[in-house]
Amino acid sequence: MEEEVYVAYLGPVASYTHQAALDSFTEPRFTLRPKTSIEDVFAAVADGSASRGVVPFENSSNGSVVFTFDLFANLSGKYGDIVVVNEAYVRVNHCVVGHPAAAPPSTGGDWSHITKLYSHPQAWGQCKQFLGAHFKHAEKQDVSSTSRGAALVAANPADTHTAAISSALAAKENGLAVLALNIQDSSENTTRFLVIRRASETASLDMRTFVDEPVEWDMYKTLVSFTVAQHGAPGALADCLAVFKKHKITLTSINSRPSGEGSWHYVFFVEFKGRKRAPNQGGPVNEALQDLGAVAKDWRWLGSFEDAAKYAK
Amino acid sequence: MEEEVYVAYLGPVASYTHQAALDSFTEPRFTLRPKTSIEDVFAAVADGSASRGVVPFENSSNGSVVFTFDLFANLSGKYGDIVVVNEAYVRVNHCVVGHPAAAPPSTGGDWSHITKLYSHPQAWGQCKQFLGAHFKHAEKQDVSSTSRGAALVAANPADTHTAAISSALAAKENGLAVLALNIQDSSENTTRFLVIRRASETASLDMRTFVDEPVEWDMYKTLVSFTVAQHGAPGALADCLAVFKKHKITLTSINSRPSGEGSWHYVFFVEFKGRKRAPNQGGPVNEALQDLGAVAKDWRWLGSFEDAAKYAK
Repeated sequence: MEEEVYVAYLGPVASYTHQAALDSFTEPRFTLRPKTSIEDVFAAVADGSASRGVVPFENSSNGSVVFTFDLFANLSGKYGDIVVVNEAYVRVNHCVVGHPAAAPPSTGGDWSHITKLYSHPQAWGQCKQFLGAHFKHAEKQDVSSTSRGAALVAANPADTHTAAISSALAAKENGLAVLALNIQDSSENTTRFLVIRRASETASLDMRTFVDEPVEWDMYKTLVSFTVAQHGAPGALADCLAVFKKHKITLTSINSRPSGEGSWHYVFFVEFKGRKRAPNQGGPVNEALQDLGAVAKDWRWLGSFEDAAKYAK
Repeated sequence: MEEEVYVAYLGPVASYTHQAALDSFTEPRFTLRPKTSIEDVFAAVADGSASRGVVPFENSSNGSVVFTFDLFANLSGKYGDIVVVNEAYVRVNHCVVGHPAAAPPSTGGDWSHITKLYSHPQAWGQCKQFLGAHFKHAEKQDVSSTSRGAALVAANPADTHTAAISSALAAKENGLAVLALNIQDSSENTTRFLVIRRASETASLDMRTFVDEPVEWDMYKTLVSFTVAQHGAPGALADCLAVFKKHKITLTSINSRPSGEGSWHYVFFVEFKGRKRAPNQGGPVNEALQDLGAVAKDWRWLGSFEDAAKYAK
């Protein structure tokens, strides 16, 4: 029998990150463990207590998760060995969840019997239309996460006047029913997660791994970070970006965060199509990274991984 | 006598944005009005009820203020006429503020008589060393802003056991004393603010304005936003960035935010040295922006303004 493998994810149980972890690690040999912060996930992977970590990276409506970027920037010096091995997309589908007896009497949706709702402040903002149409009368109480709201409802089995706005996973984990499905305003609200590992941890645990040939460049993405000298040559940032163009590499995103080296000095994060290969195998990404090393002050390859947008649910 | 001129800023009274507004508009003819959100500042400028607005843009430790970027991205279509006319830098100097009778008995700093502190959660994190050394015993109560904490202390004049962590301005505005100065861990914590106006509002109200000649390029910065076609030519982002290099323009920052046009489509924000001139006057910035128009899907000049880093306090 194979030994148990631990995967750390940003909790609590039934968070959207938990869903991303379940989607990425389905075999029974994986034990998924919630962590209370993104840094705790990085720390568990860095110290080897988890073989993989799952963290949120960006949301299609809200943008970058800056905490994750700052950990990749490695300001603390503790996470220089962490790389990305996969990505996962989870659509944010908010539901009204509660005890089965709290279901509305008809499909028309008379919700007057629900007098109190729990949810995270961000979820109120993402479900404005539905809440405005059906829950104007209800008291809305903020809680620290949507799954915490579901747990609070579950804790009081006799109460059919209280419900929560959370995911279907949170309903399932807490033994509640989904009373209304997909109540969010925009159907386009998707969060992108990254699966991380130590660069030195090479066990093959991932659903999607790549063999070294054939190379289909468009199937992969690579994440790198770099800095430029604070008072260096004018155009240093442009010079760094030009290396990708020179090798005909398509940039897909660019972000910047304070570098920690001084005010108004940044670490830049660039994602692009393609992947790094073994040092002796050449190819445009290897050559671009070599050129980047000549113009950037510092740079770091943060991983090459299959573009999983096509698996998005 | 000149008519009164209104300046909107992100409140509350005595916020760091208030300090930036005071630094930027010192004459008695200016009436400074606090607004409860960054969008309210944009709205007051857009509808003409304020001639200028002051909003936070980035912090040297925490990075971009995404709410401000999203308003410049003009997702709502309401702020297409807003441009930047100046910038201001304010150093975050946290103080212990309280009633004069609450001062510690000696300069050695015995703070055992202060049993309760108010502040914003971010301030606790920025003053860890001082609080750990002197206020381990005190109850710490979160409030919505550092200046709100000062107001709560001021509301109870007999209480010499309660203090707040806030700015010296908040102490002054609330009639309190500064009991300890500059208690933050890092002396490098500075916030950068932008002064905005309507493009069509051309009254000369600003401390620093520029005449059209002579052009000292390094004295100015320009902010532009652009988007690229979602499924357009590979390398469209690199092509947009290359126009600045072609005209030997130094990029100083780059940011991206969701464009609102679809998942994983971004609006990019670029700042660079130099400034736009009248259309017939040419120059590298004018030429670069013309080239940008040929490769970007959309782009917008968001203002050229004097680099105020040298005035930072």
